[in-house]
Amino acid sequence: MLAKAIERDGQADRVAVEEPLEIRVGGEPLAVTMRTPGHDEELALGFLHGEGLLDADAPCSAGLSEDLAANVVEVDAKLRREPARRRFYTTSSCGVCGRGALDEVAVNSAPLPLGPVVARDLLATLPELLEQPGFAATGGLHATGLFDAAGTLLLAREDVGRHNAMDKVVGRALLDGWLPLHERVLCVSGRLSFELVQKAAVAGAPILVGVGAPTSLAVALADESGMTLCGFARRSGVNVYTGEARVGR
Amino acid sequence: MLAKAIERDGQADRVAVEEPLEIRVGGEPLAVTMRTPGHDEELALGFLHGEGLLDADAPCSAGLSEDLAANVVEVDAKLRREPARRRFYTTSSCGVCGRGALDEVAVNSAPLPLGPVVARDLLATLPELLEQPGFAATGGLHATGLFDAAGTLLLAREDVGRHNAMDKVVGRALLDGWLPLHERVLCVSGRLSFELVQKAAVAGAPILVGVGAPTSLAVALADESGMTLCGFARRSGVNVYTGEARVGR
Repeated sequence: MLAKAIERDGQADRVAVEEPLEIRVGGEPLAVTMRTPGHDEELALGFLHGEGLLDADAPCSAGLSEDLAANVVEVDAKLRREPARRRFYTTSSCGVCGRGALDEVAVNSAPLPLGPVVARDLLATLPELLEQPGFAATGGLHATGLFDAAGTLLLAREDVGRHNAMDKVVGRALLDGWLPLHERVLCVSGRLSFELVQKAAVAGAPILVGVGAPTSLAVALADESGMTLCGFARRSGVNVYTGEARVGR
Repeated sequence: MLAKAIERDGQADRVAVEEPLEIRVGGEPLAVTMRTPGHDEELALGFLHGEGLLDADAPCSAGLSEDLAANVVEVDAKLRREPARRRFYTTSSCGVCGRGALDEVAVNSAPLPLGPVVARDLLATLPELLEQPGFAATGGLHATGLFDAAGTLLLAREDVGRHNAMDKVVGRALLDGWLPLHERVLCVSGRLSFELVQKAAVAGAPILVGVGAPTSLAVALADESGMTLCGFARRSGVNVYTGEARVGR
């Protein structure tokens, strides 16, 4: 359920749905996130994958607890390592948060292949090809799309949290055996943070396109990862920040 | 430092600066957030205040550790309660995250007063009055502004994280003895999440205006808190979701 009907200024309107979700692994609460309900199994698995906790080759599954209103998703997976223990609790800010020390912010990812070379004009067009029915209805959702190198949309997810939309796409790809995304292009509807680059890198995507601006750390990580990072994608063009070798004429 | 110079497509460009910050209280690491450096003391104190951990009347202070590159801010304050212990670590998604259970998402706030009544046209104009030099330079920063009821901008902060921008404004207000913000209006440059409404409510602001869309839970919390919540503010008008009594002609 992406949108919810409300009354506003005396008339019918719709807003993006936001509810908390608790992610449990082996019965243990691991995280709570605000998200748009739906595809919660993908969200949980994609989140864990982006944190470097899942092995793409090992079996894993997830399912909502019977009481749907409880907003709890149970993950059945063997984690690659113990999640970092938290001393207290965490910030609620966007982006990486809540780890015990600054040097724990980074998640290691395997090297990216050269992968596809995509025409600059096509990269600029991807946001238009990214289907966003929830955004059209509410103006309040972010989206992530998975494309092949020809610009065909393979998968799209929307969520009030932009990191969640990415997690849902990666989680779906994990469930369908599509990881690593070495021949694919990811496109997000918003800005490009460090963490979105990191999630894309861990998923093996060599090209990440965003409608909005990248941050300094997003550019630095993309450069270090050998990723092609494109921002401000719109019909008239796209800014290429790193990895120009994959951008064709 | 809001913007950083980079080379992009063979030419000079600027991007929003993003770096991690570790918040310590009494020497103990409490949270790590990705943020734009600057006003880190405000960020730390505003964050703790929004979590309901600070008493506005009790003394508190914060300062960066001597090694600035370490990105550590030390807070000296007596917390109102022990922060919820985390079992593991947390999601990196936007919004409330990482508490031990769903029912811990909410932070209690004192009732809001009627406060000012502000003309609808003025509420619609606030985003234009919100100064955003960092956004103008990079396109990659969010902003929060604190206004009086006549539409005078008293304080503005920019950050890669929209929750951080709000935390910095609240932190500054706390340091200057301006809390609770019973006669003020807060305006944010982006969307309106549950958590932004919660931070505004804890700070005592009766009116919150956003350029973007609210979520379902943001509307619900604003309604429950007795807050006036306005979204999609632009020159031509503004949507009023809750608290119409404070919106004048």
